[in-house]
Amino acid sequence: MQRAAPQEFDRVLSSMCTRPHPAARKAAERFFATNPGDPATYQAVAALEEDALSYLGDITGLSAPHGYVTSGGTEANIQAIRAARNHARDDDPNVVAPESIHFSFQKAADVLDVELRIVPVDDDYRANVAAVREAVDDHTVLVAGVAGTTEFGRVDPIPELTAVAHDAGALMHVDAAWGGFILPFTDHEWSFAHAPVDSMTIDPHKYGQAVVPAGGLLFREKSVVDSLAVDTPYLESASQASLTGTRSGAGVASAAAAMRELWPDGYRDVYERQQANADWLYDELRSRGYDAVEPELPLVAASVPDGQFESLRDLGWRISRTASGELRIVCMPHVSRESLRAFLSDLDDLRSGPARN
Amino acid sequence: MQRAAPQEFDRVLSSMCTRPHPAARKAAERFFATNPGDPATYQAVAALEEDALSYLGDITGLSAPHGYVTSGGTEANIQAIRAARNHARDDDPNVVAPESIHFSFQKAADVLDVELRIVPVDDDYRANVAAVREAVDDHTVLVAGVAGTTEFGRVDPIPELTAVAHDAGALMHVDAAWGGFILPFTDHEWSFAHAPVDSMTIDPHKYGQAVVPAGGLLFREKSVVDSLAVDTPYLESASQASLTGTRSGAGVASAAAAMRELWPDGYRDVYERQQANADWLYDELRSRGYDAVEPELPLVAASVPDGQFESLRDLGWRISRTASGELRIVCMPHVSRESLRAFLSDLDDLRSGPARN
Repeated sequence: MQRAAPQEFDRVLSSMCTRPHPAARKAAERFFATNPGDPATYQAVAALEEDALSYLGDITGLSAPHGYVTSGGTEANIQAIRAARNHARDDDPNVVAPESIHFSFQKAADVLDVELRIVPVDDDYRANVAAVREAVDDHTVLVAGVAGTTEFGRVDPIPELTAVAHDAGALMHVDAAWGGFILPFTDHEWSFAHAPVDSMTIDPHKYGQAVVPAGGLLFREKSVVDSLAVDTPYLESASQASLTGTRSGAGVASAAAAMRELWPDGYRDVYERQQANADWLYDELRSRGYDAVEPELPLVAASVPDGQFESLRDLGWRISRTASGELRIVCMPHVSRESLRAFLSDLDDLRSGPARN
Repeated sequence: MQRAAPQEFDRVLSSMCTRPHPAARKAAERFFATNPGDPATYQAVAALEEDALSYLGDITGLSAPHGYVTSGGTEANIQAIRAARNHARDDDPNVVAPESIHFSFQKAADVLDVELRIVPVDDDYRANVAAVREAVDDHTVLVAGVAGTTEFGRVDPIPELTAVAHDAGALMHVDAAWGGFILPFTDHEWSFAHAPVDSMTIDPHKYGQAVVPAGGLLFREKSVVDSLAVDTPYLESASQASLTGTRSGAGVASAAAAMRELWPDGYRDVYERQQANADWLYDELRSRGYDAVEPELPLVAASVPDGQFESLRDLGWRISRTASGELRIVCMPHVSRESLRAFLSDLDDLRSGPARN
């Protein structure tokens, strides 16, 4: 029995969440009342978390992954910085990241009381390696790169950034929260297999089609994740490395179910369909004279006048903008060609109608 | 249609999670794919979060509550400390809490780089007010008390602690994560109505019978929660005060549904039934010669020899211990008298059998 979604996903073009796969939804319903934060008590879901980690390792090129299923990319990014900070035991730690980094890094810097050094991107919105090299110093505990940026879907030069990080004695983190389930089907160098990356964020509840909340945090070395552990009296389990305490069994079970169902062929099919949608949308926008950013992954950014943008919102389109103002359309699994055609048709009406500006 | 739980809850006697109410489960299933972390995009669930906050305000005696539905008590406690730290802008902040405080405070101190000053409890496991007064100083940004401790179900002297906190220029936080849905039916002084408390943790996914993840964090003053806000480019919403980014629409919707269904009569019925269960279990344990702690709320702690404890676990009972070693039984809504009888019967078999020690 499939209940109607309370939100009409066909008009959601800005979100990095999507309609969960039916197998993920079904698994979530079975594990509503379990808590993977206490694995000794809730053993069935603890076993599923092991499965989920193992799949995430396959996807990211790590044969023996350490980590856990988080509440999402923000928790994963906060915890990667916390682990690097605790592991380094520096009295004045800093983190270096490109300006394309997700805003969760700003949150993490505030939460963890760590200095965040933001460096420019290059002309194609990728981290500028020379600028990162300039910014690191003896107190740098982590360098971060993004594999699939939130605003333009770009992949930073991960091997080069990793070399800079390690030269500085820092750890290297890759935020593949959104890109992780797409990148295995591309030629990009982004994973644990392409460089000696230390940690990674990859979210099953984004392109992995699990239910919210199901993020992922992976570490190459157990000693780094161990620096997160806090003793847990009065649980059956003895310690806890997660940021939250009680965690969602539904999220864990659904992540495992989605990956069992979709990795690799199902994810490849979706990637190919959505990349084609993004390429098509880019061409359509360009043919209408809009300045658009060529999509490397299924995400299109384009300069659209304020009046048109607001009118599209008034018509019910769930859209958002980059920090520099471009409209961004994220081709998530729920986005159909029909929906994009309808969106362009509304845009055309606005352009030809009296509200044009 | 009710699916079989993968975990037999009848044998779970240590958890502060429980079987969700059917209305809560149903609401969760409808909102699986929504993200209250982006309320401008996901408006239906944002409205439900307002409902949930309003119910939580009714329950805790706050007519205009500020705050949000968290991933659980740990996030709420971390965020209460972070808000106090950011609000005070002290260069060497400390937090004072009784030794009965939940271990999430240790996690928060590590995460937030705040000094945690732990003070003793009195002979009845309540925060020692004189010791708290002794521990606070000009750098104290928060004093915390517990309303329903995890180990013994005790309620700290909240009005007295609040006075000490405010005398020191600090904020006062109450952790009612577990107790908040029980205490309205008791004579305890614990809420915003009983003292000028500044913030509170109260978790719908514990005694509130919502699905995981649904915790609650409430603030009296908007200016305090505002100190948590981080800008959010590329979301439709402009800023975010939560610790996590993407959040569970299922948790929010189920919290609202559970409270609509159960507040106040349904919660009162459960409280009365479980308090009677706890009182009965206490008497039964004492009659068998065990040293037990009289239950003030539906939680019984008793000294049980290691051998018996381990044998009960081997029999499938999901039980845990306090830091000082006592068996603790949490009479959550799913715990039945029949289940407690079966537990005692197994205990009796162990006492009379060859494994006795």
